[in-house]
Amino acid sequence: MSAEPSLPITSPAPRFGVWLIGARGSVATTAIAGCAAVAAGLHPPTGMVTETAPFAASHLPALSSLVFGGHDTVDCPLPKRAEHLAEGGVLPHGLPAAVHAELVAADREIRPGGPPPGDTGRTQDEWIDVFAADIRDFVRRQDLAGAVVVNVASTEPAPADGSLPPSSLYAAAALRAGCPYVNFTPSTGLHHPALAGLAESFGLPYAGRDGKTGQTLLRSVLGPMFLQRALAVRAWSGTNLLGGGDGAALADPAAAAAKNAGKERVLADTLGTTPEGEVHIDDVPALGDWKTAWDHIAFDGFLGARMILQTTWQGCDSSLAAPLVLDLARLTVRAHQQGLTGPLSELGFYFKDPVGDGPSSLAEQYTQLRHFAERLRTDTPAPEAHR
Amino acid sequence: MSAEPSLPITSPAPRFGVWLIGARGSVATTAIAGCAAVAAGLHPPTGMVTETAPFAASHLPALSSLVFGGHDTVDCPLPKRAEHLAEGGVLPHGLPAAVHAELVAADREIRPGGPPPGDTGRTQDEWIDVFAADIRDFVRRQDLAGAVVVNVASTEPAPADGSLPPSSLYAAAALRAGCPYVNFTPSTGLHHPALAGLAESFGLPYAGRDGKTGQTLLRSVLGPMFLQRALAVRAWSGTNLLGGGDGAALADPAAAAAKNAGKERVLADTLGTTPEGEVHIDDVPALGDWKTAWDHIAFDGFLGARMILQTTWQGCDSSLAAPLVLDLARLTVRAHQQGLTGPLSELGFYFKDPVGDGPSSLAEQYTQLRHFAERLRTDTPAPEAHR
Amino acid sequence: MSAEPSLPITSPAPRFGVWLIGARGSVATTAIAGCAAVAAGLHPPTGMVTETAPFAASHLPALSSLVFGGHDTVDCPLPKRAEHLAEGGVLPHGLPAAVHAELVAADREIRPGGPPPGDTGRTQDEWIDVFAADIRDFVRRQDLAGAVVVNVASTEPAPADGSLPPSSLYAAAALRAGCPYVNFTPSTGLHHPALAGLAESFGLPYAGRDGKTGQTLLRSVLGPMFLQRALAVRAWSGTNLLGGGDGAALADPAAAAAKNAGKERVLADTLGTTPEGEVHIDDVPALGDWKTAWDHIAFDGFLGARMILQTTWQGCDSSLAAPLVLDLARLTVRAHQQGLTGPLSELGFYFKDPVGDGPSSLAEQYTQLRHFAERLRTDTPAPEAHR
Amino acid sequence: MSAEPSLPITSPAPRFGVWLIGARGSVATTAIAGCAAVAAGLHPPTGMVTETAPFAASHLPALSSLVFGGHDTVDCPLPKRAEHLAEGGVLPHGLPAAVHAELVAADREIRPGGPPPGDTGRTQDEWIDVFAADIRDFVRRQDLAGAVVVNVASTEPAPADGSLPPSSLYAAAALRAGCPYVNFTPSTGLHHPALAGLAESFGLPYAGRDGKTGQTLLRSVLGPMFLQRALAVRAWSGTNLLGGGDGAALADPAAAAAKNAGKERVLADTLGTTPEGEVHIDDVPALGDWKTAWDHIAFDGFLGARMILQTTWQGCDSSLAAPLVLDLARLTVRAHQQGLTGPLSELGFYFKDPVGDGPSSLAEQYTQLRHFAERLRTDTPAPEAHR
Repeated sequence: MSAEPSLPITSPAPRFGVWLIGARGSVATTAIAGCAAVAAGLHPPTGMVTETAPFAASHLPALSSLVFGGHDTVDCPLPKRAEHLAEGGVLPHGLPAAVHAELVAADREIRPGGPPPGDTGRTQDEWIDVFAADIRDFVRRQDLAGAVVVNVASTEPAPADGSLPPSSLYAAAALRAGCPYVNFTPSTGLHHPALAGLAESFGLPYAGRDGKTGQTLLRSVLGPMFLQRALAVRAWSGTNLLGGGDGAALADPAAAAAKNAGKERVLADTLGTTPEGEVHIDDVPALGDWKTAWDHIAFDGFLGARMILQTTWQGCDSSLAAPLVLDLARLTVRAHQQGLTGPLSELGFYFKDPVGDGPSSLAEQYTQLRHFAERLRTDTPAPEAHR
Repeated sequence: MSAEPSLPITSPAPRFGVWLIGARGSVATTAIAGCAAVAAGLHPPTGMVTETAPFAASHLPALSSLVFGGHDTVDCPLPKRAEHLAEGGVLPHGLPAAVHAELVAADREIRPGGPPPGDTGRTQDEWIDVFAADIRDFVRRQDLAGAVVVNVASTEPAPADGSLPPSSLYAAAALRAGCPYVNFTPSTGLHHPALAGLAESFGLPYAGRDGKTGQTLLRSVLGPMFLQRALAVRAWSGTNLLGGGDGAALADPAAAAAKNAGKERVLADTLGTTPEGEVHIDDVPALGDWKTAWDHIAFDGFLGARMILQTTWQGCDSSLAAPLVLDLARLTVRAHQQGLTGPLSELGFYFKDPVGDGPSSLAEQYTQLRHFAERLRTDTPAPEAHR
Repeated sequence: MSAEPSLPITSPAPRFGVWLIGARGSVATTAIAGCAAVAAGLHPPTGMVTETAPFAASHLPALSSLVFGGHDTVDCPLPKRAEHLAEGGVLPHGLPAAVHAELVAADREIRPGGPPPGDTGRTQDEWIDVFAADIRDFVRRQDLAGAVVVNVASTEPAPADGSLPPSSLYAAAALRAGCPYVNFTPSTGLHHPALAGLAESFGLPYAGRDGKTGQTLLRSVLGPMFLQRALAVRAWSGTNLLGGGDGAALADPAAAAAKNAGKERVLADTLGTTPEGEVHIDDVPALGDWKTAWDHIAFDGFLGARMILQTTWQGCDSSLAAPLVLDLARLTVRAHQQGLTGPLSELGFYFKDPVGDGPSSLAEQYTQLRHFAERLRTDTPAPEAHR
Repeated sequence: MSAEPSLPITSPAPRFGVWLIGARGSVATTAIAGCAAVAAGLHPPTGMVTETAPFAASHLPALSSLVFGGHDTVDCPLPKRAEHLAEGGVLPHGLPAAVHAELVAADREIRPGGPPPGDTGRTQDEWIDVFAADIRDFVRRQDLAGAVVVNVASTEPAPADGSLPPSSLYAAAALRAGCPYVNFTPSTGLHHPALAGLAESFGLPYAGRDGKTGQTLLRSVLGPMFLQRALAVRAWSGTNLLGGGDGAALADPAAAAAKNAGKERVLADTLGTTPEGEVHIDDVPALGDWKTAWDHIAFDGFLGARMILQTTWQGCDSSLAAPLVLDLARLTVRAHQQGLTGPLSELGFYFKDPVGDGPSSLAEQYTQLRHFAERLRTDTPAPEAHR
């Protein structure tokens, strides 16, 4: 005889998976360590838009409910990676030790990425199956209520032939595993003709492409300013100095071309014209995890008076990107829960080259994001969520 | 008996007065010369927001319909002033000659300003009467369909006692003459307790205060960016180097205090907090009509990572201000026509310290301005205009 | 019968004292920790001019022979202070632990500073005696072959009346204790009428004033460039953003005035004229131990063409100052050994406002410094040392 | 019977030729117009080093004694070119009119340049003869006491094969005509294996290469500063935005390569190491005759503290170059007069990539230049001048 049967059965709070492509990179490590630190109250959620008031009622998954895993081609374990980041000033000293358990737990869920260049052992479709199986296995073993796949790997060169580049294999695997997909990089991901319409056909939402964390973030507020004030931008020139792995990856002209396309699109979209000027991306290892972006904008005022605005942005890319990755994971998981499918164009606030149609000025994108936060509030899922 | 009655009487197109306080200053001279140049098709209307598409149907007075006059305490005739500006690169060479007739015409409509400091010959009320008579006389002689008074004089020191400073005498005169009033400077103008509610009681609209042309314009787009991205601004420091008359006027700490108050209000309003940091205004005559504003913004990202944004704005203040003065004159004349009265808070886009309640981010102010442009479209005046 | 008497008695290597006024400040802590770290081979001697080739034969005391002590009015022990500096990124993480023993040893040799403001318990002369006794006691107990007193305390306000400010009491105490004196700050030190000629009468050398570590260092190479190229500098404006204790100290207008005087002197001396422009020093605690200096230089080229150079210097003041403090201690100890007395004008390379007469361009100062290094090579002391 | 025979015969003051390759370009036009303006007392000689005190006794040819001519491949006459420069703000308004006669006179002495690319009508040697005849004809008709050839043409691509590029043809022609040669550009000129030792064999002096007018000028004072202070430069990155013809010429990667080689050599020479970092040269026509150079220098201080210096140089290249061209013409004419032959390494002050051996820091180069000025003072020509 026991009282237990009459007690209401409290099901454990649902947990959600965040599967990171490039799970041992700087951005991923910062996101995983930071999520644990903020969830534990060790740090305020600076840089996390989803922790601000407009998102309070949007039923986003709690930070403490997020479980991390992912693919990567490198072996350096997350706790060691976090130590490196602390030495470089990206993570606070002491943080790697404080969240050691969470880093170890996430590291156990990282599976080998691939395929290696020139691999001929498996077909592309087989690779997609392998990756999808990894993701499904993660969701099953961890008993997750849902999961999202987020690409935070180094930028890959623009694909040369029609074959699927690695980022597209992972993207296809996400869908095949029933997960929404977010592309935080300029790599191809779902932007491949062979994958067009695939997310819709799987009934899954997706977002991207190329997180807006520095120079382009600035351009998305300065461009509209010039346009609204009817000032004529004559030339917009920029130089980016990047240390870390990103600098090396983007020193490859093909990778830089992918990145620059997004930057230029923002200018052209916000200004309505394409001004003179180039964008350079330099690899400067001495800068470590920091990057510096200098912009020089020559514009005309009334009667042709020539004026100049210069900006210098000195930021830590991982610290800027990581909170946005957590934002996107939460928003996309919730959107999936609500039955939304296809391109989440309302998330253009986060991207240089947003999916779907939407405004290009940050202010209008923010307005859209707040509307999106309202849509996520409804307690009853939309009909398509009943599938 | 005559044939004339059957002919349609073509009334001449209505003309509108723009009465400038500080009518021989750089801003006024640039506005008058530029209005003539743009109206004649010599230059595109760069910097004039009211010449962009959203304002096309707002029935704003044509540039060619504007007639200029004003008060000033200096004697240098407008054509000569324009030559100086051309030598300094503010006006294109050749422009003063091309619009000589218009400058001479405007110069003939400039009346002596006052009162001189320490004047005891007239009471403040008598001075208001003198100024109001000047304005009424201008409207009558020129047979104007309406007029607006715009203060573009040098910044005056914050008033020390309860008496009305000169800018307030002119503001009161504008109302007494039945004209809307725009304060493009940080001077007191209608912001004096003794003048509270006066515009409403006269049934007149007014706008101000302190045109947003450089550093604060930038701050009104950068502040919201930091807020929307949940980045923590720790310190925002600024230095302004000003040549020309404005630099000398603002080297007076009392005048600078008036100007800085507006700048700091924008930061506090857009960020929601008041960061560390000071603003300096230096008089650097060597810069001529140009100004340079350097801003240094220290902000924290995720987990407290310290980052920095710097901006350097090199602008010609008169070239930035003049098209906005023309915008405001046109919008306010039209608002008056439509029967709008009291503070035109929808014009916050133009000001550091806008009248009425309104948003402080430039993007939201621009949205308001476009709504305002729509309100001005209605062909039938609003009911309150019948009063 | 023993062989010992016939053995040559190996005297231990001589050791030299470095007595720091402000011994628990950032500069002192960095100098003490860094001296130990470099001596132990943990770090290269970056920033130490005396470790470069031209000084190799100058018989400067080895870093390992330096013994630290000093006066300070605060209690925070050096090891704790070093931890704070490591958290702020001034010292490498791990360094405070690695040199803990040396920090503890130095901390034991720190004596209370004074007098407190408004103190009436002792006369100024009695305070000098107290300080001199502290120094003599240090030299005796540690069995030092010589010692130098270096002022690295926060800038004090320019003295208002004829009384000796604290920095001058310490300077007089140094001489009374038979030690050379170096003033690394803009405080008065030996620059007080009551102390004129005192060092000479004691037969002691001295150096100063106000270490050249950032904006002024730059000015001392840029000023000569403009002069040599016959370019006409019209205006030179500057803003300094300082965190840390120095920012707070210099927010006191009287202290800032002392600092600015040195900066302006460098400009006037290197340019031959005094251009327009001001210098601001702002306290920005958010910057921690870092400072940012922005300079804006408006200059004319051929036929009056207007051009602009801007510089932004982001430095860590303690990291810039500490190696120079070690340089100066070594050079001055050696100069004393060589019998040099009075102002060491050849050390102008290090200072904003050098003692004695000397060139103001950094390049010429460096040439002088190298000549000085040669003078120090002679093995036999100069005759005047026999006095 | 007449008194005349007993009167001393006053020979007219000697005049000297300045033969400019690229005689209708911006630099040449500014030099010709400016020489006339300064000689007439219309403007001070800002930017002309040879008009400063150390050169007063060096017997340099007076500005009024200089006669201009040259080669160019374009037809736009100098007076018209000068008007364009005045519209762009390079020359003061009114100057082209004031020196119209001198511009017309110089324009009459401009001969067609060549050979056109792919020309097969003449051999290279024949072209050299044509050019040398032009120069000799100029000297003879104008009855000049001497002449110098200065290359101020647009930068040509680095030569691909062993043939002589145009700049080398002109250089050989200068020597063949008995004239000293100065190469103010990075083009090959005398730096061609086929021309090695040629100037010496003709007994002629020469100077070059690549005038130091902006970014590299700065680097030649900042590099030594870092070296002298023992600060470790980790990365030195730079971006140049150039309008005008130079921007277009240097957008050609081969031309840019020639220019960048000089810039990097200055860094390597002044720092003693080659830091990380790249240099970009962008063509930005909107900037007109102005150029902007941004440099970002990452350096380490004591114990590895990371610091950054940024510089932004906004200059008018023609205004910076023209007075140096006049300096060099005067110095080289005088050197020839004094019998100096071969590379004038003492003129390294003016060049990015100086001929001969010499120091690379601007300060040391200036010292050399002053010694050179002293050498030129001797009234009796050196023996080798008696040939």
